[in-house]
Amino acid sequence: MEDDYTPHLPAQAAVVGCGVIGAAWASRMMLKGVDVAISDPSAEAETILNEVLANAVSAYDDLGLPTDQRGSYTIASSVAEAVAGAELIQESVPERPEVKTAVLAQIEAGAPVDAIIGSSTSGIKPTVMQAEMTNPERLVVAHPYNPVYLLPVVEIVGGDQTTLGNIRRAQGMYHALGMKPIHCRVEIDAFIGDRLLEALWREALWLVAEGVATTKEIDDIMTHGFGLRWAQMGLFETYRIAGGPGGFRHFMEQFGPTLDWPYSKLMDTPDFTPELVDALVEQSDAQSGMHSIRELERIRDRNIVGFLKVLETNKWGSGNVISGQR
Amino acid sequence: MEDDYTPHLPAQAAVVGCGVIGAAWASRMMLKGVDVAISDPSAEAETILNEVLANAVSAYDDLGLPTDQRGSYTIASSVAEAVAGAELIQESVPERPEVKTAVLAQIEAGAPVDAIIGSSTSGIKPTVMQAEMTNPERLVVAHPYNPVYLLPVVEIVGGDQTTLGNIRRAQGMYHALGMKPIHCRVEIDAFIGDRLLEALWREALWLVAEGVATTKEIDDIMTHGFGLRWAQMGLFETYRIAGGPGGFRHFMEQFGPTLDWPYSKLMDTPDFTPELVDALVEQSDAQSGMHSIRELERIRDRNIVGFLKVLETNKWGSGNVISGQR
Repeated sequence: MEDDYTPHLPAQAAVVGCGVIGAAWASRMMLKGVDVAISDPSAEAETILNEVLANAVSAYDDLGLPTDQRGSYTIASSVAEAVAGAELIQESVPERPEVKTAVLAQIEAGAPVDAIIGSSTSGIKPTVMQAEMTNPERLVVAHPYNPVYLLPVVEIVGGDQTTLGNIRRAQGMYHALGMKPIHCRVEIDAFIGDRLLEALWREALWLVAEGVATTKEIDDIMTHGFGLRWAQMGLFETYRIAGGPGGFRHFMEQFGPTLDWPYSKLMDTPDFTPELVDALVEQSDAQSGMHSIRELERIRDRNIVGFLKVLETNKWGSGNVISGQR
Repeated sequence: MEDDYTPHLPAQAAVVGCGVIGAAWASRMMLKGVDVAISDPSAEAETILNEVLANAVSAYDDLGLPTDQRGSYTIASSVAEAVAGAELIQESVPERPEVKTAVLAQIEAGAPVDAIIGSSTSGIKPTVMQAEMTNPERLVVAHPYNPVYLLPVVEIVGGDQTTLGNIRRAQGMYHALGMKPIHCRVEIDAFIGDRLLEALWREALWLVAEGVATTKEIDDIMTHGFGLRWAQMGLFETYRIAGGPGGFRHFMEQFGPTLDWPYSKLMDTPDFTPELVDALVEQSDAQSGMHSIRELERIRDRNIVGFLKVLETNKWGSGNVISGQR
């Protein structure tokens, strides 16, 4: 069963790799009262952490979630030092299998043997990552969506050697961190959400590469159209409505055949050329260059906080994840 | 230029084809004070109209947009009668090219020669639809997203014979109806938004067909994750943030190479089998069957109204389309 786990807040956590994603994990953990030890070779890690934490505190204040019983953070001098005594270890290092493997070995050298290790990877299979581990049974993918301190979903994926018991333990810990942990029962490259994102990304790049639309036109169509639907109902529930009282079968009868239309068959992956990159950069600058990244982050968070409050008032979707934390 | 048009409310409009989409068009028009003549062979058309109109009025009341200066509607006994005297004619009949062609001939037989004809088609090229028309220069695709009375975007696409002047006239009329008309400058099958939707739909069906995820799991990952982002920033603006202060070029350097990953190459279109349809129906019933379609519509509208209010308060995205109507 999907929800067959016991919520449990980790007594102590470690964040290995503290870029934007790692810093957001640390912020979420601290805001839930968990002490976090951080390991990152970069001199900028603490700066990033404090910038992201400031955004997270501001968002939680707006949401009305407590921000005054915070856990502390320490910057450790090594991976081994960071993970010592941790019950949950979140790995968010660069997306290269050989880097992941090396860091996992460092983690295992210092971590308690039963600590859960969650990897933020958006695409590498846990079976690949755990192949050389000493205690592979406690590795899960725990793939979040940015901003990690605000978006509730986390995809939990086990590899061939991960035990179901440890998947449930991981779900319980991420739940206690205010998240909605979804167990991806079948291990495939990119799991579930990123497969959908990749499909859209591929098609959007094709549209730009072919000169059909600019980045702004594509974004405008999303934000003024179907994007407003997906913050509260997904693809299938939305299409169920389109099917009317006849339900999903009627929808498939009406719209299913368009799977055979020519446009359903287009399968070109656009070439990743310097010209395409230049076009994307130029169009993105024209679209969003008037705002700094920090401004865009604050705008994004304010909007998402507003949506979460609406959904909580309406007792729907991710609003229920927020109300569960009051 | 994208916005090089003059807003102009049509003095009179016609809706040809009054299913859920046509009824929502009529509702939007009436709520903007436009009188609408409706043609539909079905005996249920007026019932659908009144159900959809009730939803639209409720949504506009919640949004604080006026609902008391409504245009009237009449049910015409023929297409020719409905379109006589109309300045804007919205066609929303079934998505089969031969049906579209036949209805367009009936429209032209009764319509003023300079009336704009907007087709709600989500995939048929205007060049195909206008091939046999007497005055093809005034046909545009005007593709909306449901709920049409609430979501602002409408994609405007001309065919080979459509004049740019008529595209601008159409944009001006849809703008006056409270929408954000986006001119798709290149005519391709399915235009822009539905190409993105088809890419996602194809991938989501593949995930269900392969048993990787259920409809509920996919929807939960959307609504608790990236769906919350897309109601306010699209794919490209979101990824610009992920690139950090280095901008879109840095994002592409980090993430662009994943275009070459195996999962970026998956191109299977799942077979449209009875077994797949059965699985979708069963999963959708389990996910959403506790709500009637009318309930789901009201839940959806209440959520989207809430999002639009948040965005208006934040002066962002589709909120600006709402504030432009105050």
